[in-house]
Amino acid sequence: MPQHSESVVTAGFVVIGDEILSGRTKDKNIGTVADFCADLGIDLREVRVVADDRVAIIEAVRTLSGRYTYVFTSGGIGPTHDDITAAAIAEAFDTPLEINAEARRILEERFGTTDVSPERLLMARVPVGGTLIANSMSGAPGFAIGNVHVMAGVPRVLEAMLEDLATRLRGGRKMMSVSIDCGVGESFVSSGLGAIQVAYPDVKIGSYPQFGRLPVYAQLVLRAVDRDRLERAAAEVQALVDRLHKEHNVDLTGTPKT
Amino acid sequence: MPQHSESVVTAGFVVIGDEILSGRTKDKNIGTVADFCADLGIDLREVRVVADDRVAIIEAVRTLSGRYTYVFTSGGIGPTHDDITAAAIAEAFDTPLEINAEARRILEERFGTTDVSPERLLMARVPVGGTLIANSMSGAPGFAIGNVHVMAGVPRVLEAMLEDLATRLRGGRKMMSVSIDCGVGESFVSSGLGAIQVAYPDVKIGSYPQFGRLPVYAQLVLRAVDRDRLERAAAEVQALVDRLHKEHNVDLTGTPKT
Repeated sequence: MPQHSESVVTAGFVVIGDEILSGRTKDKNIGTVADFCADLGIDLREVRVVADDRVAIIEAVRTLSGRYTYVFTSGGIGPTHDDITAAAIAEAFDTPLEINAEARRILEERFGTTDVSPERLLMARVPVGGTLIANSMSGAPGFAIGNVHVMAGVPRVLEAMLEDLATRLRGGRKMMSVSIDCGVGESFVSSGLGAIQVAYPDVKIGSYPQFGRLPVYAQLVLRAVDRDRLERAAAEVQALVDRLHKEHNVDLTGTPKT
Repeated sequence: MPQHSESVVTAGFVVIGDEILSGRTKDKNIGTVADFCADLGIDLREVRVVADDRVAIIEAVRTLSGRYTYVFTSGGIGPTHDDITAAAIAEAFDTPLEINAEARRILEERFGTTDVSPERLLMARVPVGGTLIANSMSGAPGFAIGNVHVMAGVPRVLEAMLEDLATRLRGGRKMMSVSIDCGVGESFVSSGLGAIQVAYPDVKIGSYPQFGRLPVYAQLVLRAVDRDRLERAAAEVQALVDRLHKEHNVDLTGTPKT
């Protein structure tokens, strides 16, 4: 089973923000980008949260850019001194940073003036060769350069930018998934599940213990791009779970029998 | 200003889990670990979310282990085939994996038997030389080896393990913070704020645009370990904001004046 067939489109995501690392802000963007990728059939392989630090941003972006089809970043593209993402990305690509003419025009329109202040113009900084990502929420655009897509950290602005991006990215074959509730503990299902995983290396089988969801003890999730293989593996897992339920006298349609 | 003085204790966090990358589960653990670090005065520098993949786990753990005082991991220490964290950590440290005698005793006690099943015993796997991290929630312990602390992915279990860990880690000098609401847009405050940042390199000044919080347009957050420096910088930022409010006729105690 090849790890990287032509139909597999991969991504990495870099969250740029001291406020996430300090605990002051609780991240919502990882879940948003994960859902976005899943919807497009893009396999999100890795996320890194780094500080507002030039060296950290450059390292993360360069590494992930070389590894995956796409890289997304969020955060650090506003007009203040701590917004260093655009400059760091330009440095990562060894290209100068400039005031992008189209971004300037967008800001002029948004602020209703051809005399946009130097501070606001900081939001029009784009590495030479970059293209804009529209921001229907608050105007100031993100940008793409190479395979890296640079977006805002404010969750609603990020979502607006992803809407623009969705039309331009190459999607992959979508992962389909099946969830099966299991009414016995993971340790009872583990050896049978392991054997099914060996027989279906192309189906990702995950097991997630459930707390406070009795009579469900674990949720078993199968994911694959091939529907037929997914359904076969799911049927085997369901048969395993049904057998265990019978052995342990469990009925998931009600409460556990005693 | 030294980057690493003796009082600076740093950390990296590795979230191990396909379910986060696929979007199926929304992460809560990054915020929990960030708050935990902030409370202890530990500077969380980097987070990585990686798949349930041996190579990815080993790479992330080795890299962060060499960079920071502490590494924390969450996820992948249950009894099923996809729980490969313990084996990957053992490999990262070039040490064998064994059934830890103390962990076995804990599981025997929890399950009320001296004949714990081979599947449940998988939860007692610890690299040779590791020490246990107690789990008051569900019994099966985490473990520490070298500077790496391996914990569960279920949020409530992770929290229980952090409680045990809190008593054993060396804390650093705590970061203190001050938040100042700003009633004008970031682009108005940016040049003044940048000048204050230059004058106070030991104070981290962040600016966060606010949406839907009018009349507040931005929140300015200052963080430092030195209280005196923090207060001086905060006084300068407050004076800047007060001056801008006056210029723009803004009153944050009520709605914006018209």
